[in-house]
Amino acid sequence: MSNPHQIILLAHGSSDKRWCETFEKLAEPTLRSIENSAIAYMELAEPSMETIVAQAKAQGTEQFTVVPLFLAAGRHLRKDVPEMIEEIVKQHGVSMRLADPIGQNPHLGEAIRDVVQEELAKSAG
Amino acid sequence: MSNPHQIILLAHGSSDKRWCETFEKLAEPTLRSIENSAIAYMELAEPSMETIVAQAKAQGTEQFTVVPLFLAAGRHLRKDVPEMIEEIVKQHGVSMRLADPIGQNPHLGEAIRDVVQEELAKSAG
Repeated sequence: MSNPHQIILLAHGSSDKRWCETFEKLAEPTLRSIENSAIAYMELAEPSMETIVAQAKAQGTEQFTVVPLFLAAGRHLRKDVPEMIEEIVKQHGVSMRLADPIGQNPHLGEAIRDVVQEELAKSAG
Repeated sequence: MSNPHQIILLAHGSSDKRWCETFEKLAEPTLRSIENSAIAYMELAEPSMETIVAQAKAQGTEQFTVVPLFLAAGRHLRKDVPEMIEEIVKQHGVSMRLADPIGQNPHLGEAIRDVVQEELAKSAG
């Protein structure tokens, strides 16, 4: 059997349910097409990264890639998240890679252009 | 002549130059393919929305659509930005429409799936 690999889509989290719902919708195409992918929140909402890691580890997964649902890296991604990951790695004996925030990938800029083109069509309509 | 319409890509802004550079890159495909589009910052960086509006108004533009480069709507988009827009509309006598945050458009979820697929390929490589 190949070594299962888990993707964690990491959102900031909020006590506002509508905010989390937007991220759950953003995650849907990924969750639908990529097995072993899950959403987690840095704070203020559940599940946490640690919850996801503990569950997946119990089923034999030891490799994780964390993809931050953040447009750019601020203090959270430069400091808080790496610290959280270091702690989870120690606690659970897993391997975790923190990917760049999604906003650094060219796909996002292209999606933004498509969104703006739709907005222009609305304004002209 | 058709009535020129200006798109404003609105990012949060930061005193961290690297943060703003990420948003400038995100804006590039839009700025390249859509005439009369510009990036502006809500705070902590320049140009502001008002700077863009004042410049465009001086050249005859009176219609603006603000597309928030935010994944989800929090307090800023529910309260602060609408207040700023109301003030600019009063000051400059223009018409401004605030679009949904980009994260509410399905293109974004699809782009995230594409990003994750690339991350998986890296992890397998």
